[in-house]
Amino acid sequence: MMDYQLTLPTLLERARRWFPEQQIVSNLPEGIHRYTFRDFYGRVCRLMNVLRGLGVRPGDRVATFAWNHFRHMELYYAVPALGAVLHTLNIRLAPQQLEYIVNNAEDTTIFADADLAPQLVPLLGRIPSVQSFVIMGAADPAATGLAPVLDYETLMADAAEDAEFPEIGEREACMLCYTSGTTGNPKGVLYSHRSQVLQCLIGGMTDNFQFTEGDVMLAIAPMFHVNGWGIPFLCAMLGARPVLPGATLDSATLVRLIREEGVTFTNGVPTIWTGVLDYLREHGGDLGRLERVLIGGAPVPLELIDAYRRDYGVALRQAWGMTETAPPGRPLVYTRSMQALPEAEKLAFLRKSATVGPCEEIKVVDELGVELPWDDTAMGELLVRGVGMAAGYFNNPEASQAFADGWLHTGDVVSVDPHGNYRIRDRAKDLIKSGGEWISSVALENAIMSCAGVAEAAVVARPDHRWDERPVAFVVLRGDAAPTEPEDIIAHIAPEFAKWQLPGPEDIRFVEALPKTSVGKFDKKVLRTQV
Amino acid sequence: MMDYQLTLPTLLERARRWFPEQQIVSNLPEGIHRYTFRDFYGRVCRLMNVLRGLGVRPGDRVATFAWNHFRHMELYYAVPALGAVLHTLNIRLAPQQLEYIVNNAEDTTIFADADLAPQLVPLLGRIPSVQSFVIMGAADPAATGLAPVLDYETLMADAAEDAEFPEIGEREACMLCYTSGTTGNPKGVLYSHRSQVLQCLIGGMTDNFQFTEGDVMLAIAPMFHVNGWGIPFLCAMLGARPVLPGATLDSATLVRLIREEGVTFTNGVPTIWTGVLDYLREHGGDLGRLERVLIGGAPVPLELIDAYRRDYGVALRQAWGMTETAPPGRPLVYTRSMQALPEAEKLAFLRKSATVGPCEEIKVVDELGVELPWDDTAMGELLVRGVGMAAGYFNNPEASQAFADGWLHTGDVVSVDPHGNYRIRDRAKDLIKSGGEWISSVALENAIMSCAGVAEAAVVARPDHRWDERPVAFVVLRGDAAPTEPEDIIAHIAPEFAKWQLPGPEDIRFVEALPKTSVGKFDKKVLRTQV
Repeated sequence: MMDYQLTLPTLLERARRWFPEQQIVSNLPEGIHRYTFRDFYGRVCRLMNVLRGLGVRPGDRVATFAWNHFRHMELYYAVPALGAVLHTLNIRLAPQQLEYIVNNAEDTTIFADADLAPQLVPLLGRIPSVQSFVIMGAADPAATGLAPVLDYETLMADAAEDAEFPEIGEREACMLCYTSGTTGNPKGVLYSHRSQVLQCLIGGMTDNFQFTEGDVMLAIAPMFHVNGWGIPFLCAMLGARPVLPGATLDSATLVRLIREEGVTFTNGVPTIWTGVLDYLREHGGDLGRLERVLIGGAPVPLELIDAYRRDYGVALRQAWGMTETAPPGRPLVYTRSMQALPEAEKLAFLRKSATVGPCEEIKVVDELGVELPWDDTAMGELLVRGVGMAAGYFNNPEASQAFADGWLHTGDVVSVDPHGNYRIRDRAKDLIKSGGEWISSVALENAIMSCAGVAEAAVVARPDHRWDERPVAFVVLRGDAAPTEPEDIIAHIAPEFAKWQLPGPEDIRFVEALPKTSVGKFDKKVLRTQV
Repeated sequence: MMDYQLTLPTLLERARRWFPEQQIVSNLPEGIHRYTFRDFYGRVCRLMNVLRGLGVRPGDRVATFAWNHFRHMELYYAVPALGAVLHTLNIRLAPQQLEYIVNNAEDTTIFADADLAPQLVPLLGRIPSVQSFVIMGAADPAATGLAPVLDYETLMADAAEDAEFPEIGEREACMLCYTSGTTGNPKGVLYSHRSQVLQCLIGGMTDNFQFTEGDVMLAIAPMFHVNGWGIPFLCAMLGARPVLPGATLDSATLVRLIREEGVTFTNGVPTIWTGVLDYLREHGGDLGRLERVLIGGAPVPLELIDAYRRDYGVALRQAWGMTETAPPGRPLVYTRSMQALPEAEKLAFLRKSATVGPCEEIKVVDELGVELPWDDTAMGELLVRGVGMAAGYFNNPEASQAFADGWLHTGDVVSVDPHGNYRIRDRAKDLIKSGGEWISSVALENAIMSCAGVAEAAVVARPDHRWDERPVAFVVLRGDAAPTEPEDIIAHIAPEFAKWQLPGPEDIRFVEALPKTSVGKFDKKVLRTQV
């Protein structure tokens, strides 16, 4: 058989050859920017020459600090096409975290959006590997305060449009992304070309999200988060149209983009979709051609799924994933057999968050490592392995030991039904152990979020002299909620739980807002400090 | 990233884990045989132990000489799972060809159906590498006349059901299939595990045949032909249901299986579907849940596509492929953009036979190797490369030189439209050169087959003193056709061709039947000897 390598430049070449007229749409401060994959290909070639001019060599790490837009997508292809590694920095991290990450990755250049550049100024003098900053979308790059500083479009204008593509092996690295670091220092996951191409093939299957060339994909999930959940690569492979929302992520803008661009698919964390629903209820209107939404990062309340399905004909699907399993997105998808089930059984499946694709495997084990049955009840830690999974952390031999047995230990507690669909019951460290029995914080959160008037809820453990741990619920009410007492909430959720699993009235705490991590998850570290 | 190997045992494990209840259905002389993927897994393990007992070692070639049924499918998985190579012998070949192939492959064992075993008797004493024959479905294996001879089910009954799976690299060989040998000796194509798994992933994409777990796939294409066009592997990956028709391939049986088993997808060469259409017109009735048919091996008359679409709601789709590009099946599929086109333009696409999937590339070149434009007009030889393509022939260094430049030179003459869809215009050697200009034999055949009353037509060149070559059409009329003269046919097709491209009345020859090759294509070698 031919030794055809699964590399990202083959996706770029595919887009150029088969889908040259397809558009890439970016929402910029100055308005909508459009060009075609043909234009894109030419600019990626220019950018490869720019990078060569900056001294970038195969294996070098080149960082971005940017929103989702066409220039960021150009970097997604040009850097790996040179055999170098694109390192997407999370724009929501604190300077100390950024400093650690840039130094751990030894980035040689940082490509930054003009409006984000000020966040990098505190790093000057502390990141010795960085030789230059290239600013995107600036009137005056020097005004950013960064140095030495260059202008993206000036470099592009001076570069040739013919580029030479070096031969790249599929096991070479193409992308680098750090975990958000809920425990200890952030850890870098180095993705191979092979893993990204295979994830695109698996993502393009019918028994997944039914992605096709006709899709218009609004990429809300940030391109600095797990390779933008794979959308920039998937679009080129399928010839689908990416819509990149830039820095403006308020509900009004998202709804406008969805309607005006004919978006069929989009993604994001649950809070985005809670906001969009509130906006639609206040302002009316529909979601145009939107069909499906991939939600990840946190459990999705069933109420939210149901509201979108009923009122807007939009299918919200949860997916499980981690930086270590990029891109996330193993959604529960109704196969035809499932579609034939009675409506009530079908709805029950929506409580499950994920299924398993080809070329990947799961195992659920108890605390002793013994495999548990797939009976929808037994809860244990989820172990995964497969073509898209990390086998270690970049430049971090100590943390990499977690992979020693060939499985990724996810730290997520799940149960698996006999169909092989799994449900995230909790993070291992978020489980509450009360009187020797487990209480699922996620189950309590979902139940509380289904109460009328509740916008968000997060549950953590507080130490308890008698029971070891007891659950504490932090609850955010909607602006328009009727007066609500802790007892109302307890009465509403009581049917779903054993009595000892329920928080007491004193452990239901109403707050104005919940702390969130840089990727939009509830920040339980902060909440634990408050109990 | 984890070094997860793309091997066939991962598909078997997937079927066992996720789809244990899915059925595998076989049509046997004694009636319908059903069991589940759970049963199948257990029997594959037994068969691995049987094979080990027969002395089969990694790398050995194990041959089959069999129809499509569950035992053949067990061999499809058990032999590669041992690291050995399954060699599927074509049951329609002559003894001399079989002798050449078995000796070239150095098969160690042949698994044969009882009813086919007599065809192997002439080989006895001429195939020294073969140490035993294992007979499937025999009352008395010794009665076949083969020796030494064993009985499949007796061996299985004696074997343990626990099997050890050795580690296999994805680039190791799993299957071997010989071309039908239209020129010179048959040539063997040795498939890697990787190529088969990747073809399954590509086959499972939405922008392909929309295969899902809910599909019921009637595998008419023989399992001795290019790995059964991949269906035995695809079904395990998706959890879809294979229906294996055994030795009975008459139209009445196929229609009955399609209706009774709820078949949604099937495949085969065009002549099968001409026969089924005739049967339906004579006997009435419908095709149940059947939705899509993958047709390969020869061009499909537009009339046939149109009749199935109009009268039975079934989409016939052509696909191009060769033994060297296994499995064949790069069908033209309507992407959403194409679906939005006016009906007339959509129909025009059906004249195209194929599109190109991810991880594969095409190039069309003229006689000097210069690449031709994608303008739907320029005709040249199709060159392909990609993950599923052969890079050489087994045990045949001389023929393997054809791959020296990294591309497979297909010998097919095509034109490509601006969408990248290509249309087979002819085999390079079937083109007719008349007065220095080319005439496409396929275009003439399609036009003649669209005449009322014509069942089949094949066109070849005859030598001509003045013009070098002139086209000769062999035409088979339907039983119920009105009296038809050569002039009627010429008048019907005249609008589509230049005058010099039309055969003269003396070159339209009515015949009772056309000679066919072992895989159902028109045998133009035989026709050329008649002109």
